[in-house]
Amino acid sequence: MKTLNLDLGIKSYPIYIGQNLLTQADLLTQHTKGKQVMIVSNTTVAPLYLDKVKALLGNYTVNEVILKDGEQYKTLDTVNEIFTALLTARFDRTCTLIALGGGVVGDMTGYASASYQRGVNFIQIPTTLLSQVDSSVGGKTGVNHPLGKNMIGAFYQPKCVLIDVDTLDTLDDRQYSAGMAEVIKYGLLGNIEFLTDLQQNISDLMNRNKALIIKTVHQSCADKANIVAQDELESGKRALLNFGHTFAHAIENTLGYGVYLHGEAVAVGMLMAAELSALEGFISHTEAQAVKDLLQKAQLPITISSKISYQKFTSAMSVDKKAGEGEIRLILLKKKGDAPISKDYQQHHLEQIIKDFL
Amino acid sequence: MKTLNLDLGIKSYPIYIGQNLLTQADLLTQHTKGKQVMIVSNTTVAPLYLDKVKALLGNYTVNEVILKDGEQYKTLDTVNEIFTALLTARFDRTCTLIALGGGVVGDMTGYASASYQRGVNFIQIPTTLLSQVDSSVGGKTGVNHPLGKNMIGAFYQPKCVLIDVDTLDTLDDRQYSAGMAEVIKYGLLGNIEFLTDLQQNISDLMNRNKALIIKTVHQSCADKANIVAQDELESGKRALLNFGHTFAHAIENTLGYGVYLHGEAVAVGMLMAAELSALEGFISHTEAQAVKDLLQKAQLPITISSKISYQKFTSAMSVDKKAGEGEIRLILLKKKGDAPISKDYQQHHLEQIIKDFL
Repeated sequence: MKTLNLDLGIKSYPIYIGQNLLTQADLLTQHTKGKQVMIVSNTTVAPLYLDKVKALLGNYTVNEVILKDGEQYKTLDTVNEIFTALLTARFDRTCTLIALGGGVVGDMTGYASASYQRGVNFIQIPTTLLSQVDSSVGGKTGVNHPLGKNMIGAFYQPKCVLIDVDTLDTLDDRQYSAGMAEVIKYGLLGNIEFLTDLQQNISDLMNRNKALIIKTVHQSCADKANIVAQDELESGKRALLNFGHTFAHAIENTLGYGVYLHGEAVAVGMLMAAELSALEGFISHTEAQAVKDLLQKAQLPITISSKISYQKFTSAMSVDKKAGEGEIRLILLKKKGDAPISKDYQQHHLEQIIKDFL
Repeated sequence: MKTLNLDLGIKSYPIYIGQNLLTQADLLTQHTKGKQVMIVSNTTVAPLYLDKVKALLGNYTVNEVILKDGEQYKTLDTVNEIFTALLTARFDRTCTLIALGGGVVGDMTGYASASYQRGVNFIQIPTTLLSQVDSSVGGKTGVNHPLGKNMIGAFYQPKCVLIDVDTLDTLDDRQYSAGMAEVIKYGLLGNIEFLTDLQQNISDLMNRNKALIIKTVHQSCADKANIVAQDELESGKRALLNFGHTFAHAIENTLGYGVYLHGEAVAVGMLMAAELSALEGFISHTEAQAVKDLLQKAQLPITISSKISYQKFTSAMSVDKKAGEGEIRLILLKKKGDAPISKDYQQHHLEQIIKDFL
């Protein structure tokens, strides 16, 4: 097992990464305050791992709430189901919530933890590649609104993140690929050595070589923890982690949440950002093509599956929270190892890219 | 104008108290970040003061969302109306929300500010006595759930609190009395000099002597700011501010939100706590009677208006968030100047008090 520490002062916490962690009770219980534990999971993950996690919590009052599976259920109404379960079970402010599932479960459980009685204990057990390498680390929690993705939420840090890569054994190929999109993001954001590794090892990774998965998850979490430690509340550098996401959110919002998996939309969004960077002359077209190749090898989409109107798409983009004071800022690839957030692009190039992809 | 400072490190903020403050633009604009301002008010307060506040914000893009008036609308659904207004107006994370109204508007606007894009700028302009002396100060925000009051929310501090006591000119007598309940709370919690002042001046205060109101609001805010500065997140001393509130929340929850005003329920709850304290022998029955007299002079209820079943009432009490680990802790009056939170009472005395009041 490897342990990373996300350094946030008194809010610091460990990220445990390894195999067979869901049999080690003390990893979990040392971070479980109070006597009441609510496990939040979904209809896909609960049948696979709920009993295993419950078995680690013999000395606690353990309840569960099982949500429907899918980004389209990441809403305020679903979070309210968690509140209702907590209140029905008479859970007080000393209780602990455990998110057992992917990014959607983690985001909603985190926001419920931030909001229930104005804040209770929270633990992440991510079971998808995307949540293991990205969403479970860093404390971004929240839900979607019909008018915009992740528009409602809180920065709320867990007490620990417990990543058992064995849970990926039950993850289907499409979800696995979606997680690989966020892995590729860390490579593109400036970790050239990691990017080179990925380009060399993508076939083995897609064949689920476990040692390689552990190394990859660890590297992704380390990169994310490093950025978050510098800028917890996204007033600067953390915005880099949204590479491709302004496009991705517009894709998800206009297609409807759940049509593309989040990671799939991010893949297309990163390619759009790479091609815009090439149009601006920041990177070569060969480098943009290499991004496309890597995404394709990870079996990720590189086009938008359905027709979306230009007006609808740009309107959805403009609502994105990285739009500061009305202008759309994007993260562009400038050169290897440098990906700044920028308004430094020509509007007609952006229009061309959007039209190319719609 | 008097200015108090609530000392919370980098989250510190000023509380301005005086007359005619809603004509002084710079008081407001020095705390208004960004260019976009959303004023949240309700159908009662907006016709009276919305234009006045808007007139102070000539250089900003100002939108408003007008909510229904009443505790029964303090729900997640109503907060979602604020999110919808923000997203429809394309407000980004640099925007400022202004709560213009009483405690319900302040609590919901604060929670919306904490949650919109994971946190935006927030200003309180309380227009009721209750919100001026209590709820606008200290950063407790949130909404009710059908199973419990204030069970969903956040600790989220405003950038300033602007208390123009002239807004009380339009406050009806019932609301004014409800606010006086929280004023009396500060006296009972240990400020003996303030309590003596209140007992002497209650008639003049009820006759709305403006100089006395300013002094009273200032003293209440100073007492609250002092406690909050010591314990922002209510891990200890801040719980004192919930004196009478475990009973009050059970009254509101079982009667239905909006039947009693919050301050009215707090008045009955404080009397229940005082009489329990007398039964325990912590204070004399004469002292408990003095509490009753003061509440009556403030034209506050001292009984519960409708029949509630004992079982329903105690069940509602047990859900209260001050119930730590399953036991109900109450704030009791021990002697003048000392009101600790305690489980140090006899269960049959609590039962007797509840039965006396139901």
